[in-house]
Amino acid sequence: MTNSELKNLLDSLSLEDKIGQLVQLTGECFAGGEIQTGPAEELGIPEDMVQRTGSILNVTGAEKLKGVQKRYLEQNPSGIPMLFMADVINGFKTVFPIPLGQGCSFDPGLVEEAAAVSARESSAAGLHVTFSPMVDLVRDARWGRVMESTGEDVCLNGVMGAAMVRGYQGKSLSEPGTIAACVKHFAAYGAPEAGREYNMVDLSEKRLREEYLQPYHAAAAEAGAALVMTSFNTVNGVPATGNRWLLDEILRKEWNYKGVVISDYSAIAELIVHGVVADGREASRLALECGVDIDMVTDMYAGHLQDMVESGVISEELLDASVMRVLELKNELGLFENPYRFADESKEKELGHCQAHRETARKLAEESCVLLENDGILPLKKEGQKIALIGPAADSAEICGSWSLFWNSADVTTLRTGMEEKTQLSACVKGCDLLDAEPVYIGFRGQELRGRKDQSDLIAEAVEAAKKADVVVMTLGESPQQSGEGAARAFLDLPECQKKLFDAVYEVNSRIAVLVFSGRPLDLRYIVNRAAALMLVWQPGTEGGAALANLLFGDAVPSGKLSMSVPYCVGQVPVYYARYNTGRPAKKGTRNRFLSAYQDIPNEPLYPFGYGKSYTEFSYGKPVADRGEVGTGETVTVVSEVQNTGMTAGTEVVQCYVQDLVSSTSRPVRELKAFARVFLRPGEKKQVAFTLDEKDFSFLRADKTWGPERGRFRVFVGGDSNAEQETEIYYCG
Amino acid sequence: MTNSELKNLLDSLSLEDKIGQLVQLTGECFAGGEIQTGPAEELGIPEDMVQRTGSILNVTGAEKLKGVQKRYLEQNPSGIPMLFMADVINGFKTVFPIPLGQGCSFDPGLVEEAAAVSARESSAAGLHVTFSPMVDLVRDARWGRVMESTGEDVCLNGVMGAAMVRGYQGKSLSEPGTIAACVKHFAAYGAPEAGREYNMVDLSEKRLREEYLQPYHAAAAEAGAALVMTSFNTVNGVPATGNRWLLDEILRKEWNYKGVVISDYSAIAELIVHGVVADGREASRLALECGVDIDMVTDMYAGHLQDMVESGVISEELLDASVMRVLELKNELGLFENPYRFADESKEKELGHCQAHRETARKLAEESCVLLENDGILPLKKEGQKIALIGPAADSAEICGSWSLFWNSADVTTLRTGMEEKTQLSACVKGCDLLDAEPVYIGFRGQELRGRKDQSDLIAEAVEAAKKADVVVMTLGESPQQSGEGAARAFLDLPECQKKLFDAVYEVNSRIAVLVFSGRPLDLRYIVNRAAALMLVWQPGTEGGAALANLLFGDAVPSGKLSMSVPYCVGQVPVYYARYNTGRPAKKGTRNRFLSAYQDIPNEPLYPFGYGKSYTEFSYGKPVADRGEVGTGETVTVVSEVQNTGMTAGTEVVQCYVQDLVSSTSRPVRELKAFARVFLRPGEKKQVAFTLDEKDFSFLRADKTWGPERGRFRVFVGGDSNAEQETEIYYCG
Repeated sequence: MTNSELKNLLDSLSLEDKIGQLVQLTGECFAGGEIQTGPAEELGIPEDMVQRTGSILNVTGAEKLKGVQKRYLEQNPSGIPMLFMADVINGFKTVFPIPLGQGCSFDPGLVEEAAAVSARESSAAGLHVTFSPMVDLVRDARWGRVMESTGEDVCLNGVMGAAMVRGYQGKSLSEPGTIAACVKHFAAYGAPEAGREYNMVDLSEKRLREEYLQPYHAAAAEAGAALVMTSFNTVNGVPATGNRWLLDEILRKEWNYKGVVISDYSAIAELIVHGVVADGREASRLALECGVDIDMVTDMYAGHLQDMVESGVISEELLDASVMRVLELKNELGLFENPYRFADESKEKELGHCQAHRETARKLAEESCVLLENDGILPLKKEGQKIALIGPAADSAEICGSWSLFWNSADVTTLRTGMEEKTQLSACVKGCDLLDAEPVYIGFRGQELRGRKDQSDLIAEAVEAAKKADVVVMTLGESPQQSGEGAARAFLDLPECQKKLFDAVYEVNSRIAVLVFSGRPLDLRYIVNRAAALMLVWQPGTEGGAALANLLFGDAVPSGKLSMSVPYCVGQVPVYYARYNTGRPAKKGTRNRFLSAYQDIPNEPLYPFGYGKSYTEFSYGKPVADRGEVGTGETVTVVSEVQNTGMTAGTEVVQCYVQDLVSSTSRPVRELKAFARVFLRPGEKKQVAFTLDEKDFSFLRADKTWGPERGRFRVFVGGDSNAEQETEIYYCG
Repeated sequence: MTNSELKNLLDSLSLEDKIGQLVQLTGECFAGGEIQTGPAEELGIPEDMVQRTGSILNVTGAEKLKGVQKRYLEQNPSGIPMLFMADVINGFKTVFPIPLGQGCSFDPGLVEEAAAVSARESSAAGLHVTFSPMVDLVRDARWGRVMESTGEDVCLNGVMGAAMVRGYQGKSLSEPGTIAACVKHFAAYGAPEAGREYNMVDLSEKRLREEYLQPYHAAAAEAGAALVMTSFNTVNGVPATGNRWLLDEILRKEWNYKGVVISDYSAIAELIVHGVVADGREASRLALECGVDIDMVTDMYAGHLQDMVESGVISEELLDASVMRVLELKNELGLFENPYRFADESKEKELGHCQAHRETARKLAEESCVLLENDGILPLKKEGQKIALIGPAADSAEICGSWSLFWNSADVTTLRTGMEEKTQLSACVKGCDLLDAEPVYIGFRGQELRGRKDQSDLIAEAVEAAKKADVVVMTLGESPQQSGEGAARAFLDLPECQKKLFDAVYEVNSRIAVLVFSGRPLDLRYIVNRAAALMLVWQPGTEGGAALANLLFGDAVPSGKLSMSVPYCVGQVPVYYARYNTGRPAKKGTRNRFLSAYQDIPNEPLYPFGYGKSYTEFSYGKPVADRGEVGTGETVTVVSEVQNTGMTAGTEVVQCYVQDLVSSTSRPVRELKAFARVFLRPGEKKQVAFTLDEKDFSFLRADKTWGPERGRFRVFVGGDSNAEQETEIYYCG
């Protein structure tokens, strides 16, 4: 449709039809293609509004959705097709590693391809919109939802968020196999105080603009995600979903964002609970005035907008602006031309977890794993070595993360299956439950998750298996249900049962390669000095077992780097590399009471952002800048030589960090500005070039303007955030 | 001097003399009354500037300081007396409980009297200025300096800070026995990220104005402290000591603060390390332009101001403004009339730790202790009960806190001495060292603090003592050196040696009353369910033993209430009562994944702010407001009936909290607005009245203006921050 056709359509709509476009309900309300009044009634939404609902949530399947759409259009007087949205986070049928793991790949090309795979699979299943990417910066491992972010870094999250948007949306939403992306959670959902889910977020405007807002800008304003989702939290006292400054002044006006803004689940109704409005009427008005276009699963808009427009409390123009954005999205998606879009039962079947998609998943899982320790035990030998596989995830399909909803358990290559394709295992045993009897965790469907009180039977079995083996591969860590939404933890260490398992096995066989399955960085002090190898594998997805087997046996070489610092202990959080120097910085290892340090632990995380080992070694030359002085509009290119000094071909993630030495405000000790994956054969050298410009030197200056300041900058290039090779440039713009 | 005389004096000064007024050196530079060039040379300050130094730090003693002043005036061409400043924090010769403990008294009258005692003692010893009160809000027990604050609460810190200022300064600084107060650390030093000393502070303007800035305003702008000290930390990216917004716009312009602003120790030089200036010249200029009048112990002002004024980089008017403020302070102190002021050797001796002062200290120590658990073991019987006193603080004089510098060990009444004045102990043994062998703490003078590896000898001795006793009084907790400046801890639990001691004693005698000596709230889960009584005694000061003995034997009745929430564990910090509701609040005890909660611990602290038990019980009636609607300029008085329902006379701290139900921003679930100590005999009832006005309903509204908003407010009255008795009023101003 042309713009004026859309405008005519809008003008032709009744007030009820307009409001319907802004209402989103769960798929339950349309199960089997028929309106199910029960769920909507529970929400307080009358049937005639259900019938007008502009979008639904988390229903998939080409056949089902075509049926829903067909019936809807028959019943819907306006003739506007419905939007189908769902949480396609780290995959649909083919499941990739959790986003925190994807961040560790530092491979935006592959992450883009993974998103494109998700789009192909889910669009064939009838979906139009996914609630991804989540680009919230995360620096506190207590928060459960760190798993859904690509990590702690401004640059990495922006690059990865933009890559995902490109992957989902292709060049245009009219391209086959695309879906619309929704950037979330605007804003700063990743910084809840004390790591407690949904807790208040309090940040200076400086920090918000320099750090937290950047990735949203990259993914929404620059990469052009079609939607943005508001967050549950308050930002500086005002809930994001009713925050004029964030939603109207920054997102709409400063960033000129034209897409659809959708609330998070029931967030408009929660404005009442936050205490910023007295009732649903005020909540609806505030949200609409802020520019929240779609109300996700509450009766706020459905119940209150009509009367407020009719009585003039809200102008119809304001309503129309939101409706128009929804219509534009539907138009961009081509729904007016084909309301069924790419829904196609045979394609859905053909594409879902197909071989090509599985390849992408395996590759991304390989790149997402981060090798932290290895005394030479890895890679394992396929022959002549008795390998015992021990641990709760050894033969488990529960390795797809807490926020992947549509995969089939039968599609998962477990670690056991993956390893057995390479060699015969001397044993594969569970070793222990994932959890102790206490504390009891609550799962996504309200179920209680706990281990047994006495797990000595499993441990005894593991000890027997370990005795007979040359090496042990042990899985430790979390259940997927222990991370994700609503899964804040105050303790980050391993449960007692896992510690007991490790101790018991270690006593009879100290050759243990530990794989940590988790949705967050854990406190690993208990095992770190005893494990012969230690690899963080996150939740690696449907091809996880195949990827891990490749890594374990050297058919793939580890290249992942930490997307989030691994804290020394929970008492150290938040901990991240891009910290301030303070006025009294503590050098590593020095003890002086009057420095910025803890008395009982180091300042340094157990492993820093950007860190990860390979099966080979890399060395770095001193970076060289192509100019010492950089003026306005000029770029500077910094070139570093990287060499593979080991015996194995491998890929290094070369990282470029910048430090602004003197400026009108304190600045981080270093900030990632660029990175590159570089493949090197043994002995091979390559020149890696990074080009920096004004925006890489910019920040919120003391006078609250944005831009660079004249002065000296250090540029560091290396294999982690402690990179030591550096050069200096002078920005004279 | 009159103002015009002062002005004439200023005009008569050479540039060097003016700058000298802004330089502060340590007393080392004047040891024995003579200029010691060594320490000043180390700092890079030439002798002729040392000679002009306007103030010195941490030297005391009437004789010594009179000598220094006499010699200084002989040598100093300007004839302006020197200022003598020192850290008189929780006492001088008579040491009171640490400020965190004083906060627990909720007794501003007594806290004022304690400050007056400190002023009398220290002014007789020749001092003019103390670096107290510290009113930084503290909500993260990892930070070591929580001991020096009166706690987590906006209202309590403001009231206590103002009380201390009145105590030190009297009605006027011309009154005998007064000293000038210095409010610190401006601003928000108490909120270092991750609890790490000197770490960056990042806060929204809303939070800064509503919470952190309030106590400084109360103590500096309202109570009229003569000085304000800047803090080490950055606030939103700009170091406080070079922060124009904080120091000039808010402190000087908004608050109209006319007093002297002094940097914290070496903070001007640290502006370079923070990265906001390139060198000492820029650091000096920035600090002076921000209105930092005195440079504490660096060569910044001494080395750079002269040239910058001479070359016109800094105007002489700017310099003069700072010098004039210093001269005004000296004039207010009466130094031009009597440069020796109240320094008096005989008075110094007569007053220091005199009987009257000791009474105040004992009383404040009694009121500072917080009884958290008591199964009836307390009070102890003076007769017919064999009491074993066990623990590292049992007979230790190290109970005065880390930031009291001038007391005599011989003056301390230890716990043993205090108890033995009441009864004969069946045993008194140390039980264990305060610390394990690891980690090693660094003390104030750089010394290494550690316990022995094997402490079984002491534990065995304790077990023997416990076996023979009817009840055990056990001291656990921290060394004073484990808190205070530079003493951040990532772990808040008891050291292993103390846990072992408790376990071993508990096995032979479970009647244990635990006294926790500490500078912060600790993680007490290990003992809380087994201790028959549990009392936090902080570091109680020179009369600590006498006060504790009174409490233990019922000669005093506990009345202290927590000035800071006791966290459940370190993974819960920051934790405080005045939290936001969030959009998904978790009710105590309910388990639902999608609420704002942790999966593995409760949301509630182990003990909340305001909590503390007595030897009797109190009950509360429903509060009654004298009007339901409150208009502009009107007050509302809320009256509650409190009754002593137990068998012992006791004092209850009645607390009045307010909640703003709906407003343009989220507001805390409750905020303390007033409190009163009420003494009640058994069965006695009293009506307690609290009067609230506009300022109690005010906050930083969404439009960034300050004031109240129309609407409903809940008023809670009770004995802790969970007070359940409430009434509602409507503010219609």
